[in-house]
Amino acid sequence: MKAIIASTSTVHGSGYLEYLSETLSEFYKNIDEVLFVPFARPGGISHDEYTLKAKKGLQNHVKSVIGLHEFKDKVESIQSAEAIFVGGGNTFLLVQQLHQLNIMSVLAKAVQSGTPYLGTSAGSNICGLNMQTTNDMPIVYPPSFETLGILPFNINPHYLDPNPDSKHKGETRETRLKEFQNLNNINVIGLREGSWLQVNDGVIRLKGKPKARVFEIGHEAYEINSDEIINLN
Amino acid sequence: MKAIIASTSTVHGSGYLEYLSETLSEFYKNIDEVLFVPFARPGGISHDEYTLKAKKGLQNHVKSVIGLHEFKDKVESIQSAEAIFVGGGNTFLLVQQLHQLNIMSVLAKAVQSGTPYLGTSAGSNICGLNMQTTNDMPIVYPPSFETLGILPFNINPHYLDPNPDSKHKGETRETRLKEFQNLNNINVIGLREGSWLQVNDGVIRLKGKPKARVFEIGHEAYEINSDEIINLN
Repeated sequence: MKAIIASTSTVHGSGYLEYLSETLSEFYKNIDEVLFVPFARPGGISHDEYTLKAKKGLQNHVKSVIGLHEFKDKVESIQSAEAIFVGGGNTFLLVQQLHQLNIMSVLAKAVQSGTPYLGTSAGSNICGLNMQTTNDMPIVYPPSFETLGILPFNINPHYLDPNPDSKHKGETRETRLKEFQNLNNINVIGLREGSWLQVNDGVIRLKGKPKARVFEIGHEAYEINSDEIINLN
Repeated sequence: MKAIIASTSTVHGSGYLEYLSETLSEFYKNIDEVLFVPFARPGGISHDEYTLKAKKGLQNHVKSVIGLHEFKDKVESIQSAEAIFVGGGNTFLLVQQLHQLNIMSVLAKAVQSGTPYLGTSAGSNICGLNMQTTNDMPIVYPPSFETLGILPFNINPHYLDPNPDSKHKGETRETRLKEFQNLNNINVIGLREGSWLQVNDGVIRLKGKPKARVFEIGHEAYEINSDEIINLN
C-alpha cells in the first residue's frame, strides 16, 4: 500500500497542494495519469471545475488528471486507475456518494492492492475505520458512516489545539474526540494542517512540519514528531 | 406552544443557566416540576449527575427536576410532564436516543399541545426540521437526522462569526451553512451564545443581547436584532 493522507490540501499563504510539491514529485515518479474523485464538493464549483483545479495542482507531477464523474463504469475506472486522488469538501457528502455508487469497497481494494492513493481533508478522513471523527456538518444523511478502513485507526484532519483565550462554549476538538472514544473503541490521530501520513507498505510515518496529536484508547493524549513511525491499531 | 430555545446553557463568566434566570423565572411561574432529558451527554458525567446539575440550575424557579432516564414508561412521563427541558451535549447521540426510544414524535406532540419546552444547545438543535445544522461530531450513527420540527426552520446553536485573522483552512460556520443550503431547501438561524428564541403561541421572538444571523434561502445572510419577531418558513 502506498498513500499520502494529508490534513489539508492547502496551508495558509501557499497555493493548492503547494506544500506537498516535493513529496508528490517523488510519489508520482512513475505515474502518468491520476483519477480524481471530486464528490466531496458541496457546490460552489462543479465536478469539472474541481477536477481542473486538481489538474492544475498536479501539473508539475503527472501528464493528466481525469475526473471519476466522467466515467459511466466507475468500478472499472477505479480498478484500472494508475493512481487515485480523493479531494476535500464535505465528508458526509463524499461518504454518501461513495456508498450510493457502490464504490467504497472497490476503492479500498484498489488501494490495498497497491494503487497509489492521495487524500486531502475529507479524502483523508475516509481512510480511517469510519467517518465519525470528521469536523464537517451533516448536510446529507449517508447510508452508513463506514469508510475505506485502509488505516487501522481514525483521522481527525484540520486538527486544532484548544484556544486558552476563547470565550466560546462549544466543545474543543480534544473534548469532541474524547467523547467519540467514550462510545467507540478506536484510536485517532489529530493531523494539524501542514502534516500528512505517508504510507509505504506496512509503514505509516508522520511527515510535514507540525507534530500530530495521538488519542490512544487507555492513554492520555500525546504528541508525535514528524518522521516518527506510527504503530497504532 | 411555549418554548425557550437557547444557543447555549452557559455564557462565558457566568454559571449554568444563569444568564436565562429572569426569563426562566417568568417561564416557570406556574410550574412545580420539570422533566429533564439528559440523553445528549456523551460521558464524563452520568445521567443522574447531569440531572442534578439541571436541578441546581433551576432551583430558584421550580420545586423539582426529574430525569427521564429514571422512568420505565418514558412515553407516559413525557405525556404527563408539566414542563420539559432537553439539555445539551452531542446532538447525534441525543437524536439517536430519542429515535431508539421511539419518543421523538411523542416529545414533539407534547410541545405542540402546550407543554413548556426549554432547550439548550443540542436541545435547541432538535427543535428544527432536522439536525443537519449541528456543529457536533458524529460520534454515533442515528437511524435518521429528523428532529422535532416544532420550528419551521433549522437552528445553528453556538453560532460563530468568521475570524478574519484565522490561518486555519477548515470551513467557516457561514460556509458550512451555505453548503447545507446548497443541498437542502431549509432556512437557518445562527444563534450566537447569549441569545435564545422565545416561542409564544405562533410568535417566535429573538431574545438576549446578541443579534442573530439569518440564512434565508434566496437571500444574502442578514442580521436580526433582539426582540424582533421572526417570520420565516
